[in-house]
Amino acid sequence: MRTRAAVAVQAGKPLEVMDVNLEGPKAGEVLVEIKATGICHTDEFTLSGADPEGLFPAILGHEGAGVVVEVGPGVTSLKPGDHVIPLYTPECRECEYCLHPKTNLCQAIRETQGKGLMPDGTSRFSTLDGDPILHYMGCSTFSNHTVLPEIALAKVREDAPFDKICYIGCGVTTGIGAVINTAKVEIGSRAIVFGLGGIGLNVIQGLRLAGADQIVGVDLNPAKVEMAKKFGMTDFVNPSEVEGDLVPYLVNLTKGGADYTFDATGNVQVMRAALESAHKGWGESIIIGVAPAGAEISTRPFQLVTGRSWRGTAFGGARGRTDVPTIVDWYMEGKIEIDPMITHTMGLDDINTGFDLMHKGESIRSVVIY
Amino acid sequence: MRTRAAVAVQAGKPLEVMDVNLEGPKAGEVLVEIKATGICHTDEFTLSGADPEGLFPAILGHEGAGVVVEVGPGVTSLKPGDHVIPLYTPECRECEYCLHPKTNLCQAIRETQGKGLMPDGTSRFSTLDGDPILHYMGCSTFSNHTVLPEIALAKVREDAPFDKICYIGCGVTTGIGAVINTAKVEIGSRAIVFGLGGIGLNVIQGLRLAGADQIVGVDLNPAKVEMAKKFGMTDFVNPSEVEGDLVPYLVNLTKGGADYTFDATGNVQVMRAALESAHKGWGESIIIGVAPAGAEISTRPFQLVTGRSWRGTAFGGARGRTDVPTIVDWYMEGKIEIDPMITHTMGLDDINTGFDLMHKGESIRSVVIY
Repeated sequence: MRTRAAVAVQAGKPLEVMDVNLEGPKAGEVLVEIKATGICHTDEFTLSGADPEGLFPAILGHEGAGVVVEVGPGVTSLKPGDHVIPLYTPECRECEYCLHPKTNLCQAIRETQGKGLMPDGTSRFSTLDGDPILHYMGCSTFSNHTVLPEIALAKVREDAPFDKICYIGCGVTTGIGAVINTAKVEIGSRAIVFGLGGIGLNVIQGLRLAGADQIVGVDLNPAKVEMAKKFGMTDFVNPSEVEGDLVPYLVNLTKGGADYTFDATGNVQVMRAALESAHKGWGESIIIGVAPAGAEISTRPFQLVTGRSWRGTAFGGARGRTDVPTIVDWYMEGKIEIDPMITHTMGLDDINTGFDLMHKGESIRSVVIY
Repeated sequence: MRTRAAVAVQAGKPLEVMDVNLEGPKAGEVLVEIKATGICHTDEFTLSGADPEGLFPAILGHEGAGVVVEVGPGVTSLKPGDHVIPLYTPECRECEYCLHPKTNLCQAIRETQGKGLMPDGTSRFSTLDGDPILHYMGCSTFSNHTVLPEIALAKVREDAPFDKICYIGCGVTTGIGAVINTAKVEIGSRAIVFGLGGIGLNVIQGLRLAGADQIVGVDLNPAKVEMAKKFGMTDFVNPSEVEGDLVPYLVNLTKGGADYTFDATGNVQVMRAALESAHKGWGESIIIGVAPAGAEISTRPFQLVTGRSWRGTAFGGARGRTDVPTIVDWYMEGKIEIDPMITHTMGLDDINTGFDLMHKGESIRSVVIY
């Protein structure tokens, strides 16, 4: 079939919206009509050329929602008409990782996914001239139709609006999941969130959901304050306004250090500050942000020997097919908010505007509605 | 009273064995006759002058066992004749740390202990000329008699031999505790232990106790193999004999990385290798060793984002008054071994021989018997 997609033809160039060919689903695969997709920093990271594993030409996008159009042979858990959210971290429920209680990093299709291919080692996308176009993070939601493995689709309720729940495909789940799955924050905790962008705001509402008593937000941009307060931030710290070192300031503000700290910046110096502002004895620091290629974190080992833990999270530690439908329920029940974070919407033809808004720091989330 | 002690008069000089004055116990304090004491690398670290917090003159030693001689006013949990092990990490059972479920780092007397003083800010030791001599780690077991706070003494069974259980005051508890309290290793785990000295061997027997399936020991010294095997090591790796990088070799040996890795070397490069040889998704690396002043650990944050955790442990995460008596029981019941690790014994007058044996790498543990 033909469908319309925004193609990343080359690193550092704007996306090109064009008609492309899409092969139907093979065994274990599902054809999905994407109804809406968020534009995430990770798409930008790859498009910019900074991602050392970025491959071109490819159809980016990994934060979508849509409807099943057709299922390939052997697909049993989905049928045409089902509403779904694509999962860049799949959940096969059979691999060593899925069967391990401590991780969500299903490895079933990792190798081919990393190469921009479906599990059989080929791509379903091609140009009208027949040249292959690669998939991206196994999702390629910047195409109106896409093919995914069955294990990479979460089935969600049908009354949830696509243009909001698409954000659950990455940002919402990453932020909230970091709190509830990875850190397992307890009621009454004190926490610090570094970076009040699309992930940081979701960490904040995850902390509110978990019953944290103190939720400190740290950002250089005071324009972030209003929204962050709306999501549950109790204290704001602008490092540029702190006299002296940031870490002792934060330790003092949190009465000895935070029980949990979260880096949502991707800056390795911030990651260190996040670790060192965790409480001696029991503070845990969770890295969410993606650092530039080759960047390293460092600290004195004494920080760990005196009881701090340094950890990380991917997709918020969520097992997508199991956890994503629950987060959609939470949104529909009003337990979490998404609407205020979706600051801009646009059609596919204007997708590059979404990247421009991100560069200017004017959007929290732009969503493309097909 | 007068007692006999080995005094660290100055950094970098041998200990001087001499008679010293010892004041009796004040409120909340206990006078203990030390019957035996181990010589630990931490004593050496301070004596050498490498410890930036080292103070002189002081009476070192923190790995002892003895008998209560006299109790000060208000002491309720101990009486003369009780057998005790001094605790450099006390357990007051009242401070914020003792009441927190995730730490053993009681802070009740930390400030004065760090200054070489009893909780009232003074020292009980002095030279025969009346010049004060400092305490060390709140213990000073290189003195035949010493005074400690009640909260820094674990009461243990009376049939346990002092010259063996003194080792539970530091090395045994640190190694075994890192496994069972900090890492909470599960039955069937794969583990790697870096450094097969006095701590590493106890990590190994802790892993055996916890039911680990694979226990890999890593050391540059092949002379360590025989003893480590005796304590439960299943595989030995000498990094100098590995072709190529050590980390991928260890990852391959442990079928994808170890569930738990332990650094018992204090070398920050080894700490990095320990983290990176932990299993993607769920591997945890525990730092036990004490690094040189100013040394830093580093890694790519991707190591954490893909599911590894970096943690540390002090005194094996043990709450001394609660956990040390249990470890003494385990020794008496044959669940753990200590005797083969105590390779040398000597009288107090020969204590410097113990340091010499450590320097030469000839001892695992030297014990001074009073």
